[in-house]
Amino acid sequence: MRKEFLMIPGPTPVHPDITREMSTPVFNHRGPKFKELLEEVTEGLKNFFSTKNHVYILTASGTGAMEAGIVNVLSPGDRVISMINGAFGHRLAQISESYGASVEKMESDFGEPLKYDLLEERLAQDTSKEIKAITVVHNESSTGMMNDVARLSRIRQKHPCLIIVDTISSLGAVSFPVDEWEIDVCLTASQKVLMMPPGLSFVSVSKKAWDSMKSASMSHFYFSLQRVQEFFDIGQTPFTPAVPQVVALRKALELYFSQGRENVYHRHEVVFQALRAAVKAIGLELLIKEEQLASRTVTAIKAPEDLDINQLRSTMRENYGVEIAGGQGKLSQTTFRIGHLGGIFEMDIIAAVAALEMALLEQNQEVELGSGVKAAQQTIMQMQ
Amino acid sequence: MRKEFLMIPGPTPVHPDITREMSTPVFNHRGPKFKELLEEVTEGLKNFFSTKNHVYILTASGTGAMEAGIVNVLSPGDRVISMINGAFGHRLAQISESYGASVEKMESDFGEPLKYDLLEERLAQDTSKEIKAITVVHNESSTGMMNDVARLSRIRQKHPCLIIVDTISSLGAVSFPVDEWEIDVCLTASQKVLMMPPGLSFVSVSKKAWDSMKSASMSHFYFSLQRVQEFFDIGQTPFTPAVPQVVALRKALELYFSQGRENVYHRHEVVFQALRAAVKAIGLELLIKEEQLASRTVTAIKAPEDLDINQLRSTMRENYGVEIAGGQGKLSQTTFRIGHLGGIFEMDIIAAVAALEMALLEQNQEVELGSGVKAAQQTIMQMQ
Repeated sequence: MRKEFLMIPGPTPVHPDITREMSTPVFNHRGPKFKELLEEVTEGLKNFFSTKNHVYILTASGTGAMEAGIVNVLSPGDRVISMINGAFGHRLAQISESYGASVEKMESDFGEPLKYDLLEERLAQDTSKEIKAITVVHNESSTGMMNDVARLSRIRQKHPCLIIVDTISSLGAVSFPVDEWEIDVCLTASQKVLMMPPGLSFVSVSKKAWDSMKSASMSHFYFSLQRVQEFFDIGQTPFTPAVPQVVALRKALELYFSQGRENVYHRHEVVFQALRAAVKAIGLELLIKEEQLASRTVTAIKAPEDLDINQLRSTMRENYGVEIAGGQGKLSQTTFRIGHLGGIFEMDIIAAVAALEMALLEQNQEVELGSGVKAAQQTIMQMQ
Repeated sequence: MRKEFLMIPGPTPVHPDITREMSTPVFNHRGPKFKELLEEVTEGLKNFFSTKNHVYILTASGTGAMEAGIVNVLSPGDRVISMINGAFGHRLAQISESYGASVEKMESDFGEPLKYDLLEERLAQDTSKEIKAITVVHNESSTGMMNDVARLSRIRQKHPCLIIVDTISSLGAVSFPVDEWEIDVCLTASQKVLMMPPGLSFVSVSKKAWDSMKSASMSHFYFSLQRVQEFFDIGQTPFTPAVPQVVALRKALELYFSQGRENVYHRHEVVFQALRAAVKAIGLELLIKEEQLASRTVTAIKAPEDLDINQLRSTMRENYGVEIAGGQGKLSQTTFRIGHLGGIFEMDIIAAVAALEMALLEQNQEVELGSGVKAAQQTIMQMQ
C-alpha cells in the first residue's frame, strides 16, 4: 500500500468532505428537495463563473458541455473561427465541423501563442459580418499554455460574433470574469478546480448567445439548453441528473467560497511557481518558457531525448504513488505533464517533485536529489 | 426524521454496498487501474444484456444513450418507424426527427398496445426496403405497459431494417435476450434495475448496426460510439467518465449476479403481483388492466376523479416518507405511478401500499385500512 497523488490535469483529488457527499442516498430528482438543491447550486455556479448569466448543469463530461456550447447557438453552414494551439482547440473545431459549421482554423503550433493579430485583421475584413462565432480554449491543458481570452474579447469588441470559451481546466483557479470580458458561452467541468468527481459539466450563456439560440438550427436533443431552461423553471432537469454529483456540487461550491476566491488563485500561483522553479533546478526544460503565457493549472515538461516517458510515469506511479500525465496529441512522444489544479496543494507538489527526481535517477538521468525540492520550498516560503 | 422509500420509476434506492463504492477516491481514467475496471464492467454488462455484442458505457442519462443509439446508425432523411404508446416512445421519435430522420409515427393511445399488425403490413409493403429502423420502448414507464419486443422482432425478421430498443426501465428485471431477439441497438441506464445512482448509460450494438454506422451521417461528437470503441481498445473512454459510477458499476453487477438472474426476475414478479392485488383490494383502478401487458417495474394507477394527485403524493411523502411519481405526459392529471424496480423489495411494497391507504383516507377517500396490505401479503406468501 502507498499513498496516491493524483497529479494529472483532471480529475483532481476529490476533497474528503465532497467524497462523503457522493454517498448521499439518491432521492427524487422531480421533487421539492431537488428543486431547492438545483436552485442553490445554480446560484453558486453563477458566482463561481462571475456572471449574471444563467449557468446550466449537464450530466456529461466537459466535452458534452463543449458540444452544448456549440450546437445550441449555431447553424450548419455558419462561419466559425477556431483559434487553435493545442488538442482541445482542435476539439472545438472538430465538434463545430461535425455539426456542419464552416470552420476557419487559425492554427499555431502546439505551445505557441494564438494568432491574435491575424484574428484582428480577419474580423476587420469581415465587413459583411459573416463570422458567427470564435471558439477558443482558455487553458490548453495539452500544452500547459493559458491563452489571453481578455485580449480576444477586446479584439472581438466591434464585431457581433459570439465568443465560445472552454475554461474546463482553469475556471476558478485564475481570474476569469465572464461578464466583464463579455464571454457569450463559457463552459467547465466538475472534476477540475471544484475538487469534485467527474460526471457533471456547466455552461453559461449570455443574452446575445441566448438570442442566437432562437434561430440556431444545428441538430441536438440531449444537450438542448432551451430544454434545460424550461425544466429549470420548474426546479428540475429534463433528464435524470447524476444526483450524487449534484449533491456533491453544493459542498464543492461551499468549500470553494469558504477558502476565498483570491486565496484559491494564490494557492494555484504558488504551486505553479514552485513546480516551475523545481523543474528548472532539476535541469529539465519547460515547454512554455515565458511565465506570462504558462498555465497556472498544468505544466508540460520536455523529456530529455533518452528518457522513456512511459517508463518514467510508471516508475513514479509504482514506486512513489505519484500519477502524472503523458504528453497529448503531437507532443505525446516529447513531453510529460503535471496537473496542479483543484485538490493539489503545496505539499503535493513537493511530493511530486521528489518522486520525479527519484524516478529520473532510476532511469539514469543526471539529477541531484533534493535540488528541485529545495527550489520548490524556497518559492513556497517566499510567496507565503 | 423518517425513513425514505423511493418508489418512483427510477432512480431506485441505491444498495448500501453500491453507495459505499461511490465514495471511492477518484483515480486516473487513463491508467492501468481504469483499464482493468473498464474491461471487467464491460464483460459484466455483456452478460447483463445477454449479448455477445459490445456494450458501450456513456457518461450521460438514459436519454443520452437513446440519442447515441440513433445518431450513430442513421442518416438524415432515413425513414424510421417509431412505435409509440407513451411518453418515451415519443422521445425516440423526437430525437430521430431532431437529427433529420423522416419519422413515421405508429401511434397508439397512451396505455394501449402497439399496432403490431399495422407494422407487419407496412414492412410487407416496403418492397424497396426504404425503412431503415424501427424505434420502440420495451417498458413504457409513462403508462406501466410492457411492449412485446419479441413479437416486433419476429415481425421485422424478413426486413433488413434495424430495431432500436429502449430498455431503460426494464433490462435485468425481466428476460430480455438481446441476441436471441436480434436486437440491433439496446440501451439502458444505471439508476434502474442495477440499483445504482444515475450518471451512466449503456448501449449494445449488433454487427448489423455496426455496419450501418460506417455510412451513417447524422451529426454527433460526444456520443460517437466509434470513438468509444477506439478508446475501449486502449482501455479508456474518449472523454473523462463519471469514475465513481464506473467503480460502483462493478459492485452493482456483482450484486446482480450474486442474487441470480432468475431470482431477480422472480422478485420483480412478486412485487408487481403484490402491488396489483393491493390496488384492486383498495378499490382503485389499474391503468393497464390486462396483466400480460403490464410492466413488471412500474404501475400506473387511475386516480378517482375527486382525488388531488399532488396532494396525495405530498401526503405520502411528508407523513410517511414514501415518494411516488405523478402521471406523465397526457396522463399527468389522471394517474399516479409507483415504481418497483431495482432496489425495491417485498416489504417496501407493503410500506408503499400502507402509506397509500392512509394518504387516501386523509383525503377523504373510502378505503379500508389494511385491505391492500392484506392482499399484498397474501400474494407474497403464495408466491414464496
